[in-house]
Amino acid sequence: MSNNKIIENENIKLIADAFNRAPLQLNAIFECDAELIRFDNDKILAMTYDAIVEEIEQGLYTDNYQIGWMAVTISVSDLAAVGAKTLGLLLDLKIPNEIDALSLENLQKGINDACKFYGCHILGGDTNTNSILQIGTTALGFCENKLMRTGMQTSDVLYVSGKMGLGSSYAYSRFIDGAETEYLPKAKIKEGQLLSEFASSCIDTSDGLFPAICQLMEINNLGFNLKIPLKNLLHDTCLKISEEKQLPHWIFLCGPHGEYELVFTIPEDKSKAFENEAKNMNWKPIKIGEVSNKAKVLTNADGLLLNVFETTNLYQKKHINSPEQYMLELLKLDKEIRL
Amino acid sequence: MSNNKIIENENIKLIADAFNRAPLQLNAIFECDAELIRFDNDKILAMTYDAIVEEIEQGLYTDNYQIGWMAVTISVSDLAAVGAKTLGLLLDLKIPNEIDALSLENLQKGINDACKFYGCHILGGDTNTNSILQIGTTALGFCENKLMRTGMQTSDVLYVSGKMGLGSSYAYSRFIDGAETEYLPKAKIKEGQLLSEFASSCIDTSDGLFPAICQLMEINNLGFNLKIPLKNLLHDTCLKISEEKQLPHWIFLCGPHGEYELVFTIPEDKSKAFENEAKNMNWKPIKIGEVSNKAKVLTNADGLLLNVFETTNLYQKKHINSPEQYMLELLKLDKEIRL
Repeated sequence: MSNNKIIENENIKLIADAFNRAPLQLNAIFECDAELIRFDNDKILAMTYDAIVEEIEQGLYTDNYQIGWMAVTISVSDLAAVGAKTLGLLLDLKIPNEIDALSLENLQKGINDACKFYGCHILGGDTNTNSILQIGTTALGFCENKLMRTGMQTSDVLYVSGKMGLGSSYAYSRFIDGAETEYLPKAKIKEGQLLSEFASSCIDTSDGLFPAICQLMEINNLGFNLKIPLKNLLHDTCLKISEEKQLPHWIFLCGPHGEYELVFTIPEDKSKAFENEAKNMNWKPIKIGEVSNKAKVLTNADGLLLNVFETTNLYQKKHINSPEQYMLELLKLDKEIRL
Repeated sequence: MSNNKIIENENIKLIADAFNRAPLQLNAIFECDAELIRFDNDKILAMTYDAIVEEIEQGLYTDNYQIGWMAVTISVSDLAAVGAKTLGLLLDLKIPNEIDALSLENLQKGINDACKFYGCHILGGDTNTNSILQIGTTALGFCENKLMRTGMQTSDVLYVSGKMGLGSSYAYSRFIDGAETEYLPKAKIKEGQLLSEFASSCIDTSDGLFPAICQLMEINNLGFNLKIPLKNLLHDTCLKISEEKQLPHWIFLCGPHGEYELVFTIPEDKSKAFENEAKNMNWKPIKIGEVSNKAKVLTNADGLLLNVFETTNLYQKKHINSPEQYMLELLKLDKEIRL
């Protein structure tokens, strides 16, 4: 099991390893959801760029209001995972020449509403023409404390910020069921700021829970032991689909389309104080397990739960290019596991 | 003349006016090459995103080393124009699935060499697959002083950081002449830092000299009086092409492909001190004229030099979609002017 590796990380390394690291940068590659930069001795700036490309191309997002909302949410969620306060965003807009006024207006409204919700602003940006709509955002923030993916220790408590699987169930509804469902997830920016005082590691679930768990296990060279049944951490919408369509619970946790919640660990002796503070802000994080010393293995009371590196890597291994195909491969895998 | 307007600015306003301004932001739209953000009371952060899209699509850049170099230069040049020191860059890479190892290596080498030249680093970024290569960068920096496009006063001295027109002559060589020429312009990052102590306004010539001049005239509601013949500010390469092909000098100054020099103004009483400091760093900026109170008009000793808003707007007005077509339209205009 110790040769478990995230294939996508290997591909990113092929590109990133060519570049020298910046002396001002606090994090190494894969150590953080956003890049942390030491500024003016004691300040920490956080910066991230993320874009919506495949999601539009593959038809996962078709509504322009939703696309605008998501374009802000994807990079703000990265800032949430490092506990940053947002300073502002730059917009990278690649729009078709023939875009109509109403589509543009809806896109702007989605961007504006998301900014209002997060209490941030568009500072500027760049516009190019492109055959299909693509939209990216750079988010800039600053951190009071350093919160990264690295730092967790054996026996730290594992939490998720909320119920999981809504990203997958949305993709399922769109592609398999052909249903129109709303999907406007909210990045956990205030929760992340509280976490920066307590957490020993944090990552967002923009790619789903299991890929996030893989990232944390790989970078920390530790494992997790889940202490609650998977169905207890699944969003009600997933449970409903799972029941109606006779689908296994675990496939809703594989991504690659996530729900922008946070997965994090808290040292055991801080967990009580953390839960109290969370309660004060009306937030109920869910305790799901603990950090184990079994490197890169996810277990539960019965032993090995599932090789989550296998499900995470399926996308690359099978050269999958749609969420639909991925879900079908997961169902195939489920049959193999049951045999 | 007072209704002279940059059409592209009007198009950008259609997108940007939908968004509320950030209270932390120091510049309004079009006032700056980069967005300026007040941070921690007295610090100024500068941030910009720029992408190479049309340049690759239209075949202006075909060499991957050059594309990598340019991707860094375009956003670092925006930081140069606000006199910022670079903290680092994020890479937005959209690459075809089938890109070969050598192409990727050349791209990385171009990025790396540019970063080394500017003394900055790639901090992180995002990779997506796309049918054709597109590459963008976000550059983050900080400013000791506030340098913007706005602030110039009548009688301030107008300078350019170096000879002009290389961006246009490169496009001419590629598209009309079919010649292979090297084009690796260098953003004026150190020059910009000196300017932040002296200049009353500054902009880069990423779109060419005349479009830069239009931006300065429009945002300041002032004009310029040129005091040297155009040929004295043209790069030798342009002069050579101009002579060989019997082309007028002015068409090399219209963009839209620029040379990443700076255009700036210095209050008269500071110009001597500025020139001395420039000399100390082996830099010879060229004094080309002065700020006039004739709003949005470019004159020389003979009166109106050329309606540079007309040449700048030609691209939008004639729905031009290639540098080649633009140059042919400029030549047509030249004939009309001479008649």
